Amino acid sequence: MRHLLFFDALKEEFLIMLGKMLENVRTRCPLIHNITNYVTVNDCANILLACGASPIMADDREEVAEITAICGGLNINIGTLNSRTIESMLIAGKRANGLGHPVVLDPVGAGASRLRTDTALRLLREVRFAVVRGNISEIKTLASGSGTTKGVDADVADRVTEENLGDIAAFAKAFAAKNNFVVAITGAIDVVADGDRAYCIRNGHPMMSAITGTGCQLSAMTAAYVTANPEHRLEAAAAAVSAMGLAGEIAHGRLTEPDGNSSYRNYIIDAIYNMTPERLEKGAKYEV
Amino acid sequence: MRHLLFFDALKEEFLIMLGKMLENVRTRCPLIHNITNYVTVNDCANILLACGASPIMADDREEVAEITAICGGLNINIGTLNSRTIESMLIAGKRANGLGHPVVLDPVGAGASRLRTDTALRLLREVRFAVVRGNISEIKTLASGSGTTKGVDADVADRVTEENLGDIAAFAKAFAAKNNFVVAITGAIDVVADGDRAYCIRNGHPMMSAITGTGCQLSAMTAAYVTANPEHRLEAAAAAVSAMGLAGEIAHGRLTEPDGNSSYRNYIIDAIYNMTPERLEKGAKYEV
Amino acid sequence: MRHLLFFDALKEEFLIMLGKMLENVRTRCPLIHNITNYVTVNDCANILLACGASPIMADDREEVAEITAICGGLNINIGTLNSRTIESMLIAGKRANGLGHPVVLDPVGAGASRLRTDTALRLLREVRFAVVRGNISEIKTLASGSGTTKGVDADVADRVTEENLGDIAAFAKAFAAKNNFVVAITGAIDVVADGDRAYCIRNGHPMMSAITGTGCQLSAMTAAYVTANPEHRLEAAAAAVSAMGLAGEIAHGRLTEPDGNSSYRNYIIDAIYNMTPERLEKGAKYEV
Repeated sequence: MRHLLFFDALKEEFLIMLGKMLENVRTRCPLIHNITNYVTVNDCANILLACGASPIMADDREEVAEITAICGGLNINIGTLNSRTIESMLIAGKRANGLGHPVVLDPVGAGASRLRTDTALRLLREVRFAVVRGNISEIKTLASGSGTTKGVDADVADRVTEENLGDIAAFAKAFAAKNNFVVAITGAIDVVADGDRAYCIRNGHPMMSAITGTGCQLSAMTAAYVTANPEHRLEAAAAAVSAMGLAGEIAHGRLTEPDGNSSYRNYIIDAIYNMTPERLEKGAKYEV
Repeated sequence: MRHLLFFDALKEEFLIMLGKMLENVRTRCPLIHNITNYVTVNDCANILLACGASPIMADDREEVAEITAICGGLNINIGTLNSRTIESMLIAGKRANGLGHPVVLDPVGAGASRLRTDTALRLLREVRFAVVRGNISEIKTLASGSGTTKGVDADVADRVTEENLGDIAAFAKAFAAKNNFVVAITGAIDVVADGDRAYCIRNGHPMMSAITGTGCQLSAMTAAYVTANPEHRLEAAAAAVSAMGLAGEIAHGRLTEPDGNSSYRNYIIDAIYNMTPERLEKGAKYEV
Repeated sequence: MRHLLFFDALKEEFLIMLGKMLENVRTRCPLIHNITNYVTVNDCANILLACGASPIMADDREEVAEITAICGGLNINIGTLNSRTIESMLIAGKRANGLGHPVVLDPVGAGASRLRTDTALRLLREVRFAVVRGNISEIKTLASGSGTTKGVDADVADRVTEENLGDIAAFAKAFAAKNNFVVAITGAIDVVADGDRAYCIRNGHPMMSAITGTGCQLSAMTAAYVTANPEHRLEAAAAAVSAMGLAGEIAHGRLTEPDGNSSYRNYIIDAIYNMTPERLEKGAKYEV
């Protein structure tokens, strides 16, 4: 009984922590440098503004070091990488490391081509990341150094389910411990882990997979959360993941009959814009 | 009388066929590789998801052959071509041909610059396409090897009208026969033809020209339809064209007073998301 | 008293002028060539269509001169510049100058990196612009040849306020006179000036800064307005600025409780689509 009360108190504390993470983004307004793909870049910019941060996109090797220097954090997304931008990612990542700015990696499609796998692995070797966020196939590719990914979505064989949740959490903790970063594996159930703890987050809605870029948007937002909360990387990443999932739930509740994935996309960003610490504390569904 | 009944039966059969094409996209979930312009790329990704397919965008020469290999079909759009991506289009197109994957070409702005005209013609020489979709000015440019296009819209002098519809249909059939592909000429009236038959499709709404990228979106969706229905290229392309036009009609019916082209854009993708075989069978307006 | 009546008549005349500028965009349908960033490019295309113009995006050095030649005006935006596109900007700008087409510059982030500052200054030296539109930090950077910009937003220290409005207007007039172009400084209060006059425009809503690309969209629309009204550059630029701000007000009035910045983005473009000369004449808030 005392044990349960103890956990209830912990849970309460964690929920308040999630709300605090969000509040810090709104009060500290971090400026986030994004080197990201051209598919979802507009949504990434708008969700950063929605959550209280400011975006800047710049990918030319001549300016990325300077741009990163005036920002608080860096978000690297390899969604439409090319030889020109890969070099810029490395330059910006190293500069951010030198300045102590948190860097987030979204290894979009790692495993789908050698270029993506090799680039993601090279980034992991040459840049220290605060958070790596991807689907389970992408993260497994990074952890094993190779892999197969069905395009930019997770392999069905790889899906996170109730059955393999314990294994995935252990895997995430081990991968996080080895690299000293936070791992966020997102899917039907999200796992956010550092070397010590893993949170399982059950927010979100299946329809989120019917719009492009919810993952990219979450990575951008995660960069804002860890930048505004540098002393709490794990909780910041968990708060971003939970906020995105909760926005997916709220937006789904807003759909009416003729709405489809395009309206849903707008409603999710709207929900992030209207998210408050209270809503996040009340809506977050997680377990340690 | 028997003749009419015969055509009624044919028409009924064709409508059921259109619905079947859509159903196959939803059940087979084709993964489509897009090398496309950065203006409308997000809408292309979202409409592919809306219709039941999955998108992947990749344009670097180092990875396009691999990416195409894990996909079922390829969509090439020259809307913001450059020397780097032109090479990638050729590499991906040839690889898709080698694998027997259907390839769709959207020759955006062919005729507007020598680079666009030459690139489109070179693609036609070096890659075998399943479908070529464009406005009448673009298609005429490809057929004649030169042309004038007012930007990315069709020349007024070129518009498909009731008066020239017969000529346009004959032209489309001849161009299709010569190249052994399906030609989809879209505008106020759409003409979809292979070497044997031409369908005239009268779905759509004039307001569709007030949003950017309905053509690009249709090309992406056509790639999904022909990939899910490889044995019925003509009917698959006609189904995609009809579905897009019908979505334009449904979305227009949903507009309220303060709505403009931005809401309309969302409503069209929403309508594709909510399209069913029954709606398509009921709403398609066509003639042979 | 006579003085006041005189100004009332002038004001009336100016308001009618603003409406006339808009009407000319709708009747002349200018085709605008955009070399712009990949973050907000889709919104730029849709707002050009919304206001009655047609967009074409092309940034390869091999085709920009030809594309500019078939257009009526050119919009250069350095938001995600790179070495390849900088060269294209110079080629297109010079060709547009040779043809007498108006050219608009949006110096996004000038002051944030040496590449941006140097590129903007080089463009100013080598291309004659009809209008330069930016926030106060960007414009100060151009005027002084150096500067600091917090990312792509104006420095707080730089904000246009009631207190410094007179100074800013004088600064804008001097900068405009020196370069023989129109300067549009946009922010909470907008200042649009040529060498002789400065208009202060008080349309807009603070929430416009919560969406990405309202500035980029305004620059694209300004290119449409000056192209359709070549003999009235100042009034055309003022009309575009006023229309954008008024659209921000109308769109804000349309927001309901669950709406956020993503819906707001759509509503602004919708409001431009539905803008009439009468609404603009009635809603414009300005002073000389």
